[in-house]
Amino acid sequence: MDQKFEKGGRVTIPTDVDVVEETLRLAGRWGADAVRDCDGTDFPAELTDSGMKVYATYYTTRKDNEWARANPEEIQQMYLMTPVYTASGEELRILLMKGFYRDMLKPNTRDDIKRWWEVVDRSTGEVVPVERWRYEEEAGEVVLEAEPFHDYTVSFLAYIMWDPVHMYNALVNQWEGVEHQITIDVRQPKTRAFSMERLKRFMEEHPYVNVLRFTTFFHQFTLVFDELAREKYVDWYGYSASVSPYILEQFEREAGYPFRPEYIIDQGYYNNQYRIPSKEFEDFQAFQRREVAKLVQEMVDITHEYGREAMMFLGDHWIGTEPFMEEFQGIGLDAVVGSVGNGATLRLISDIEGVKYREGRLLPYFFPDTFHEGGDPVREAKVNWVTARRAILRKPIDRIGYGGYLKLALDFPEFVDYVESVCQEFRLLYKNVKGCVPYCAARVAVLNCWGKMRAWGCHMVHHAIYFKQNYSYAGVIEALSGAPFDVKFISFADIKENPDILKEIDVLINVGDADTAHTGGAWWCDPAVSSAVKRFVYEGGGIVGVGEPSGHQANGRFFQLSNVFGVEKENGFTLGYDKYNWECHDHFIMEDMDGEIDFGEGKKNIYALEGAAVLVEKDREVQLAVNTFGKGRAVYISGLPYSFANSRLLQRALLWGAGEEEKLKQWFSSNYNVDVHAYLENGKYCVVNNTYEPQSTTVYKGDGEHFSLDLGANEILWYEIG
Amino acid sequence: MDQKFEKGGRVTIPTDVDVVEETLRLAGRWGADAVRDCDGTDFPAELTDSGMKVYATYYTTRKDNEWARANPEEIQQMYLMTPVYTASGEELRILLMKGFYRDMLKPNTRDDIKRWWEVVDRSTGEVVPVERWRYEEEAGEVVLEAEPFHDYTVSFLAYIMWDPVHMYNALVNQWEGVEHQITIDVRQPKTRAFSMERLKRFMEEHPYVNVLRFTTFFHQFTLVFDELAREKYVDWYGYSASVSPYILEQFEREAGYPFRPEYIIDQGYYNNQYRIPSKEFEDFQAFQRREVAKLVQEMVDITHEYGREAMMFLGDHWIGTEPFMEEFQGIGLDAVVGSVGNGATLRLISDIEGVKYREGRLLPYFFPDTFHEGGDPVREAKVNWVTARRAILRKPIDRIGYGGYLKLALDFPEFVDYVESVCQEFRLLYKNVKGCVPYCAARVAVLNCWGKMRAWGCHMVHHAIYFKQNYSYAGVIEALSGAPFDVKFISFADIKENPDILKEIDVLINVGDADTAHTGGAWWCDPAVSSAVKRFVYEGGGIVGVGEPSGHQANGRFFQLSNVFGVEKENGFTLGYDKYNWECHDHFIMEDMDGEIDFGEGKKNIYALEGAAVLVEKDREVQLAVNTFGKGRAVYISGLPYSFANSRLLQRALLWGAGEEEKLKQWFSSNYNVDVHAYLENGKYCVVNNTYEPQSTTVYKGDGEHFSLDLGANEILWYEIG
Repeated sequence: MDQKFEKGGRVTIPTDVDVVEETLRLAGRWGADAVRDCDGTDFPAELTDSGMKVYATYYTTRKDNEWARANPEEIQQMYLMTPVYTASGEELRILLMKGFYRDMLKPNTRDDIKRWWEVVDRSTGEVVPVERWRYEEEAGEVVLEAEPFHDYTVSFLAYIMWDPVHMYNALVNQWEGVEHQITIDVRQPKTRAFSMERLKRFMEEHPYVNVLRFTTFFHQFTLVFDELAREKYVDWYGYSASVSPYILEQFEREAGYPFRPEYIIDQGYYNNQYRIPSKEFEDFQAFQRREVAKLVQEMVDITHEYGREAMMFLGDHWIGTEPFMEEFQGIGLDAVVGSVGNGATLRLISDIEGVKYREGRLLPYFFPDTFHEGGDPVREAKVNWVTARRAILRKPIDRIGYGGYLKLALDFPEFVDYVESVCQEFRLLYKNVKGCVPYCAARVAVLNCWGKMRAWGCHMVHHAIYFKQNYSYAGVIEALSGAPFDVKFISFADIKENPDILKEIDVLINVGDADTAHTGGAWWCDPAVSSAVKRFVYEGGGIVGVGEPSGHQANGRFFQLSNVFGVEKENGFTLGYDKYNWECHDHFIMEDMDGEIDFGEGKKNIYALEGAAVLVEKDREVQLAVNTFGKGRAVYISGLPYSFANSRLLQRALLWGAGEEEKLKQWFSSNYNVDVHAYLENGKYCVVNNTYEPQSTTVYKGDGEHFSLDLGANEILWYEIG
Repeated sequence: MDQKFEKGGRVTIPTDVDVVEETLRLAGRWGADAVRDCDGTDFPAELTDSGMKVYATYYTTRKDNEWARANPEEIQQMYLMTPVYTASGEELRILLMKGFYRDMLKPNTRDDIKRWWEVVDRSTGEVVPVERWRYEEEAGEVVLEAEPFHDYTVSFLAYIMWDPVHMYNALVNQWEGVEHQITIDVRQPKTRAFSMERLKRFMEEHPYVNVLRFTTFFHQFTLVFDELAREKYVDWYGYSASVSPYILEQFEREAGYPFRPEYIIDQGYYNNQYRIPSKEFEDFQAFQRREVAKLVQEMVDITHEYGREAMMFLGDHWIGTEPFMEEFQGIGLDAVVGSVGNGATLRLISDIEGVKYREGRLLPYFFPDTFHEGGDPVREAKVNWVTARRAILRKPIDRIGYGGYLKLALDFPEFVDYVESVCQEFRLLYKNVKGCVPYCAARVAVLNCWGKMRAWGCHMVHHAIYFKQNYSYAGVIEALSGAPFDVKFISFADIKENPDILKEIDVLINVGDADTAHTGGAWWCDPAVSSAVKRFVYEGGGIVGVGEPSGHQANGRFFQLSNVFGVEKENGFTLGYDKYNWECHDHFIMEDMDGEIDFGEGKKNIYALEGAAVLVEKDREVQLAVNTFGKGRAVYISGLPYSFANSRLLQRALLWGAGEEEKLKQWFSSNYNVDVHAYLENGKYCVVNNTYEPQSTTVYKGDGEHFSLDLGANEILWYEIG
């Protein structure tokens, strides 16, 4: 490592052939010790000897159209479903590609469509026998014998003729005249062999590359565009584009039962994260994890044989490499890099085990959507850093970096300055925090259908994107990403398999809408699960429910834990019951709240049962309530969008749930805009202002000793303990 | 009939022993031709020859505690369910009467509790075998062998030791020292025989009584009080208090399958109107209708033998005498009287067939809750009359009347004056309207699980009482009660049995929350039903959906008619789909709206599908949208509380749905606060101001000819046609 990075390091800078000098200059200022290319840029020969580690983006699945065209049967495929069509007579014609971008997707008629496609009667849920439909290729229509006024869909396989991320980048950057990159399927035999050779060839041709930044492995998350090239459907966790007859036949052999397109199509919902996963989909995901891990390992081994490091980009074609699952741990990857959109996505990276280091690509990406005249990249960078920092202080990533066209950033000198300060702050923070478990006030577990597989990302649809329907729930996860708790993610299946896992938890969290994978739906009708949770609380555990926790209409209640939470939802079925419990009470949980609490979307029609204590009601709808159940405690919150005030509310709710109110004022800031984190093993603690304005607070140390403090905007101050 | 009533009639006045002179005086002013006693008043001997018809309230089920005490096994019973208890160990003790008023209800241990009670594991829905529980009478507790942390309830029979309406009246009027009236069960053999003799004796002892106002027949609607004598549960349509082992054994013989308490208990929901009725409950109701009708007929026949008229009060113990069902028609009742709370409850009376006349008891009831110093009975009377009049103009009742303590009304001379004007207005209206079907612009049917049995009352919980959770839906029914449409109520079973009934309908209405009896729930998964409705619309019918019409999560959609309505609900499952259809359009439906439309509680998370036209969206949630489906039309409204503006909106939506926009300006008022009703057969039409302020409007006659008109507050003007 070059002398000039002695005081730097842990930072990656993007480059391009047209910014060689500037790269070196900024690398010096930022303390970058690694340099990278990006999609759409080229690595300049002049920088191969800069002393910085060289990352090269490596695309396993694209940038080789020649191969793709020569082996069209090994182009990647995905399952798609047409819109729902109602038959008005006894024949129905369904235009297959209605609603899809034709340049991106091409129906696969090469394989046996009667085996791999499925026509479903959506009025009954039954499959239409193959004898009752045919495909007219010229018209692009499935023609079927219908029951009049039944609804039908066609599930079909299509080749991915334009890689969705390439298409997205081309659209955003208005790339003109670029050839559409076709996605090839490394899982299939010819392409697999070819890809291993291609990888070796790449390393041979790029001896200066130290780190292969795989972008990524084999399967793109689900991303589809409509006729107008607008995004039509996206699921960052979607497995729809990880299929082919080759893979599915292998799955059938392993699973021991026949595959159905519906296992992927899932009524058109494509098994997204809100759906309670079916056994077959879980089987399929497990199969994919195993198979993808094997193949990734092969590539990693080759990379290592060439003396290079293998880094995985957690995005794009990342499907199948689930970083929180067992299969991932044995792969031998050196590093993971991912985009940091907020605290939750930071933890999505920093909580990964089984790699030597983790890198966060901070925002903004140096693309013209931000770096244009009138753009304010400093503001974006500040929000991104301050948001990410909260989480880094709980569980640090090992490196930070940026991506895009460096040239664009050069026009914004204030941005360059700000990045310099971020890099310095990160390095100091890392030194103080690394290798140390920060002080945790309680052990908390988020309970849903996905468990650890979707840790930190359970409410995400499109990576870190805001959705009106989930911000009140995603807020809980975001709050946790920087909160002084030991946070786990567990599934209902985990509890069913081993109820004793609850013994290692102080407070459970169940957050989301009823009948989704987030709250569990029919899982609550399994007494092995519901009784274990009730026993956990009864014997002294805590539970915090947000939205419609345990919501599933059955056995005389909507909230299956209604007698634990002490609340129920009025869905008309209990309108005949008079409700008398509306008086609001003061409570430990709300002691730092200085105005109206923001419950976000909240929930309508919640009422309290006898014995529960209502803390907030609005217009005869309970927003916040607490209840005791045996020795345990339950908190109901109607919604909790992310804010510093709400993070504090959640912190107090969790402590109260755990029966640990007295722990509140240990490593604590009276002002909820300011956090205190203690690293006992390292003998350090910090006080950090999460806002963009100065703040005053009283800081409580671990022994309750306290002092007043004023902090500048965003300021972080480090102290020695003792 | 006495001379002095020549210009009067059609009015019933209440009386009491202390207001003889005043009764006569007011009867003269109001034109009363009938006089009545009430619960808590006595009929004065001086009025037996007043020339007015004499009504006597007659209580079949109470006011004979001597008989009740002598025959305790024939005291009325009801099914009750305890709260849900969670077992914390292997033994669980459930206090039976927790939450119930002990003076009102007494567990029935006389009959075999192991046969008639049921302990249910509410974690699994399974019945706990009778060997695993016992009842400790002294402690009042059921003791059961439990699965730890399962939830349990006990369903049990209790005797009604204080008639719920008597209790209610005693509480409201703060009657001191009254003996609690026990409810006796006329259905049981000894009491049945006794009751027939008691009825004869009553008539013999009251020769001056012309009309027996039965209050009512045999079974009280469900009304229970809690430990603090507060109302605990009420369902004006509830059948829970119509049970006894005697009746249930008879039911078993007829139904051919064993009875289970759960058929009444229904998980603690007591089969209320929001619940999709089970086959067993429908069987039970049908059985009750038949049996009650037989017994009522016996009493009516006796009444007629004595030369008296039999009038039924539609309330209190009315359960089993469903006035819109076939069994009712053959009974031979002379009249029905009911309380008029609004337009819908007016139609609940005026739409009844099979009686000679129908009487509406207007509000306020002369009770001290309104008639006290500072009370404003005129305001209440005005609201009641103007609200009822809208409906009377569509389908008149034959008489009006009042109830309570006349003495109280005497202190409010303005009230007495106002009633006089109401009586005059009613008589004129009746003369002009009676025997004539008013002009209807289209045939409309409300589709739900109850159909005609719950016509006009489908959203009612407690007679005409406001509920936050249903006012947005009840508003549709209230609007229809006075709207220029031919209104039917049909059930899903009706369509399944005979889809051709849809041929006699122009527009269907489906209104309410998902998975309730109002919108149909799983009925929509029966393709015989869903296809019939889709065909109906496709071939040119209209459908108006309010709230969550056809809402039931299945087969890839929440709204089972999503492609008909062109809208869908975002419940997380479609978050991955981009939504582009948000632009709002002008439309015929909204042309009279002059401000923001009040959608009441509305619905969250509704979005439009491609092709639908959004009319109103708020904060990216569709409130109003229209769609075409084949030749038909669909309107989606998120909620529609009752108001004159919203009545107009609904009127336009129905006309547009029917494809009859050009019919709008026939018998029409440009000002939606004013209605026009035409009675073509009688050659009359009226223009009526429904507000308490003067109004100006343009009146359109049937041929489109129009003129301007100013009306005084509440004014109604009558015109000749032609």
